[in-house]
Amino acid sequence: MKTFSQATAVVAGDRGLRADLDPQWAVGDKLHGGYLMAVLGRAVAVEASHPHLVAMSTTFLRPPAPGPADVEVEVLREGRSAGQYRARLVQDGRPCAEALVTQGVLDSAAPWWGRAKPPVIPAEDECFRLPADAPGSPFRVPLLDVVEHRHDPACLGFAAGKPSPDGRVAGWLRFADGADWDPLSLLIAADAAPPVSLTLGITSWAPTLSLTAYVRRLPAPGPVRFVMTSSEITSGRMDEIVEVWDSADTLVAQATQLAAVRV
Amino acid sequence: MKTFSQATAVVAGDRGLRADLDPQWAVGDKLHGGYLMAVLGRAVAVEASHPHLVAMSTTFLRPPAPGPADVEVEVLREGRSAGQYRARLVQDGRPCAEALVTQGVLDSAAPWWGRAKPPVIPAEDECFRLPADAPGSPFRVPLLDVVEHRHDPACLGFAAGKPSPDGRVAGWLRFADGADWDPLSLLIAADAAPPVSLTLGITSWAPTLSLTAYVRRLPAPGPVRFVMTSSEITSGRMDEIVEVWDSADTLVAQATQLAAVRV
Repeated sequence: MKTFSQATAVVAGDRGLRADLDPQWAVGDKLHGGYLMAVLGRAVAVEASHPHLVAMSTTFLRPPAPGPADVEVEVLREGRSAGQYRARLVQDGRPCAEALVTQGVLDSAAPWWGRAKPPVIPAEDECFRLPADAPGSPFRVPLLDVVEHRHDPACLGFAAGKPSPDGRVAGWLRFADGADWDPLSLLIAADAAPPVSLTLGITSWAPTLSLTAYVRRLPAPGPVRFVMTSSEITSGRMDEIVEVWDSADTLVAQATQLAAVRV
Repeated sequence: MKTFSQATAVVAGDRGLRADLDPQWAVGDKLHGGYLMAVLGRAVAVEASHPHLVAMSTTFLRPPAPGPADVEVEVLREGRSAGQYRARLVQDGRPCAEALVTQGVLDSAAPWWGRAKPPVIPAEDECFRLPADAPGSPFRVPLLDVVEHRHDPACLGFAAGKPSPDGRVAGWLRFADGADWDPLSLLIAADAAPPVSLTLGITSWAPTLSLTAYVRRLPAPGPVRFVMTSSEITSGRMDEIVEVWDSADTLVAQATQLAAVRV
């Protein structure tokens, strides 16, 4: 089983950078959006003069299959404190995802000002580890074998046929191989699973149209907690807003996405 | 004075579409980010098979000057329920902003599910209209002559030399010429002014690195209310999260941005 770094590696190829998309980082037969963002972010880092991914907005066009894919990176602007890039994931000549990325420097400093509060969720050992093979699930979630998801039981009613109207998903995430989180792997947490729609009782697929993530600081070692909420599902689209907090109780990432939902 | 539609118009030019950036839609000598996004959105609509802007993520590279600019639009994918596009604003051969856009169909239907609550702010006539020429301000804000901003007085302590630690800006917005809001003009509200940092007492410029907006439904006639909050200012960057509600008390737009802040 590949580490996160290995699974997101890029190498120089004929047409720019080349990735080998790993089937392990998938939900059902679809590669996880956060994983694909991390591959794009890895490619941007090759070109960038600043070390850390700070902001990334990705539009998802069509799901790529596991296996080889090209990543094209264009430098839009290199500045003193930030650099900005466009990145495209291409498979068989067709664009699968396109991203706008800002790189900069992250540290672990306390905020100059803040009003965010760490999420209140049960202790990690009181949460429920999601299995890759859930009884009654129509598909396997291989991602759950590499990223351990331990969810607040209050969010899991749907799994027992009792959806909740709360519109909230929360839990703890850690890598099964013990790896610590870094700015790129936080993109996995920014695209948390399952979608809020599933907890409301909508079992159909909720493909992400657009996902924006901000990485706010270098995460402390240990697991991260996430809370994902939606504001509303309307006109066949759902927003999902995520905060990710590290073991030192500091906000490490924020994300928002718009997904299509068939209700 | 041009209407919003006139100020954001695009026409066919030598290198794709051409806009004439209007100096009225500016904060100081910088064109407003929401206005630039609307110009990009207008250009995308020319190419798109779906009528409404649904999601837009924009990376700001360098501020364009008022006057002619080119907009290059690339179709990334045309689907049955959504289309996805890349758009670039170019002036004097240099990219000024680049956006990823999702188009779809918006309606005015009630949400299938929702947990968002309309903002609680004072009535419009109890709010304070921001002047284009504020006493003590180092610059003029021409935007305020075309988009009337009436702000919750609780957010305006900074203007009297008494910054607030709340990190919240809220108020009412309406077009001075009486125009109603539409999906493109809601991008103006999505990039609300002033930045949260100013209300905290930081007077230096807070340039937007990246801004993502979702338009959730067609707005009802009349003014809109917005609430903008920040989670934290850290490592020289600030997030700002915006909700925009229409006169029928429905959520019409959401936005999040990351801005650079010198503290």
